[in-house]
Amino acid sequence: MPQTSTDAGSIQDTKDIVIAFQGEHGAYSEAAAFNHFGPEITTLPCGTFEKVFTTVNDGECTYGLLPFENSLAGSIHRNYDLMLRYDLSITSEYHLRVNHCLLALPGVQITDLRRVHSHPQALAQCETSLTRLGVDRIAESDTAGSARMIKEMNDKAAGALASQRASEVYDLEILAENMEDNPENYTRFLALSKVQKSGEGVEQGDYKTSVVFSLENKPGALFKALGVFAMREIDLTKIESRPLIGKPWEYLFYIDFAGHIESSSCARALVHLEEIAPFIRVLGSYPRHKIEG
Amino acid sequence: MPQTSTDAGSIQDTKDIVIAFQGEHGAYSEAAAFNHFGPEITTLPCGTFEKVFTTVNDGECTYGLLPFENSLAGSIHRNYDLMLRYDLSITSEYHLRVNHCLLALPGVQITDLRRVHSHPQALAQCETSLTRLGVDRIAESDTAGSARMIKEMNDKAAGALASQRASEVYDLEILAENMEDNPENYTRFLALSKVQKSGEGVEQGDYKTSVVFSLENKPGALFKALGVFAMREIDLTKIESRPLIGKPWEYLFYIDFAGHIESSSCARALVHLEEIAPFIRVLGSYPRHKIEG
Repeated sequence: MPQTSTDAGSIQDTKDIVIAFQGEHGAYSEAAAFNHFGPEITTLPCGTFEKVFTTVNDGECTYGLLPFENSLAGSIHRNYDLMLRYDLSITSEYHLRVNHCLLALPGVQITDLRRVHSHPQALAQCETSLTRLGVDRIAESDTAGSARMIKEMNDKAAGALASQRASEVYDLEILAENMEDNPENYTRFLALSKVQKSGEGVEQGDYKTSVVFSLENKPGALFKALGVFAMREIDLTKIESRPLIGKPWEYLFYIDFAGHIESSSCARALVHLEEIAPFIRVLGSYPRHKIEG
Repeated sequence: MPQTSTDAGSIQDTKDIVIAFQGEHGAYSEAAAFNHFGPEITTLPCGTFEKVFTTVNDGECTYGLLPFENSLAGSIHRNYDLMLRYDLSITSEYHLRVNHCLLALPGVQITDLRRVHSHPQALAQCETSLTRLGVDRIAESDTAGSARMIKEMNDKAAGALASQRASEVYDLEILAENMEDNPENYTRFLALSKVQKSGEGVEQGDYKTSVVFSLENKPGALFKALGVFAMREIDLTKIESRPLIGKPWEYLFYIDFAGHIESSSCARALVHLEEIAPFIRVLGSYPRHKIEG
């Protein structure tokens, strides 16, 4: 059962919350929105990642919720690129365990299935289970759309790999859960807002801060940059370099560290980093959401 | 036109080279294989990434060539995971500029098209061009497969987004090139072999070395680890942390640095790193392939 993440619990009345997400109703991103913000929110489907950014920017929703990394597929650079183009802040994070469910029309047995529809990545992640079933794989644009399709076509020989949420949206039955070969499949979502929340209890609370910065191509530049955190005993929770295309010696770095930007040690570290990095953008400080292991 | 990468040029007779890749004939991975190893090689299509690893391991090919990161989509963690499970070495790298071509049956005009088939990621990357054409998007399992399909169905109202290579394999015409919204779309391929090449001229040559290591959760552990490179003025060309699921405080790090593992400074840096990192695996030393900007 979805559980509301306490990290998003600072909002009083969840009925007024509108969350923009990429995909259609029943998408994993929508499941993450309900888990994170509570079952009473309103969700707003957007066709593209960028549409989520413009929807937040235009004030048409409370937050946008977007995937930034997956434990198997890696970071989604596209969304970091969009963070640099729009002036939004990260206000919370949520880790969704990706549970690919096998959905079918009510009354259908698993042995009735001749084909299974889904996004190619979901089909690939469920390779072993699908081979065991001996079904044809049919590629679709997204997981929720494949659930909608077998409903609309009333196809009793077809299944869909999609979220548990999709079974509720399209009134389908769950024939099997956890169809994926690798159970260590998590997607990290970040909530985006036009307003950066002010920190309360920032010195004690369990916060993370995300920053993007560039470095000049000098020996040891990254070592010096990390020194501003190490010298203050600030733990890094993520580091990733991103080569700049066409500029083979220049890099962007994505870093997450423990602490709130308004805490004194983190604030000082950032001032120090400005001495070293030609470009810095703080993407936000937000409560840490722990993955359940 | 594909150009043979000189980085792979140490092999004498390319006719004897067999390259295993993931996908079917006409895939971007196969295009990368011909560009990198030359037009006379033999290619061996594999259904999954892991099948490429087993094919190399069983001696059924000369090299496996697999994508490890894309400039928009990020690192492919799955292939790093497989590197840790199989005892293979990286012997060269190749950066492929992803050029999505619009393919159709001979004689078809672009205005005849009513629908375009491809992998959902390719369809998404060509959003603007496809909207301008006003065509329906049809998801398929892979780009080359969509080219094969319009050929087999002899569908004159259908196009496919796929590589230039796919147009040759399936005898289709290229109606347009560079359909993607973002031209800075590169995929980095790594060639894998059972045998690590011995370095020649390792002190002077332009090499890279890839390593994976873990660190204990101690403040400043990463800073110390990077110090072994900074102190020897060894440039890092990639760094990425990867959280270990279920072990929220433990990380793997992927690092690429300039230099060959058999050069004295790199060899010493690695011995030094062993003092700090509980686990280290050298994935290989190989000639650097520069992206044409």
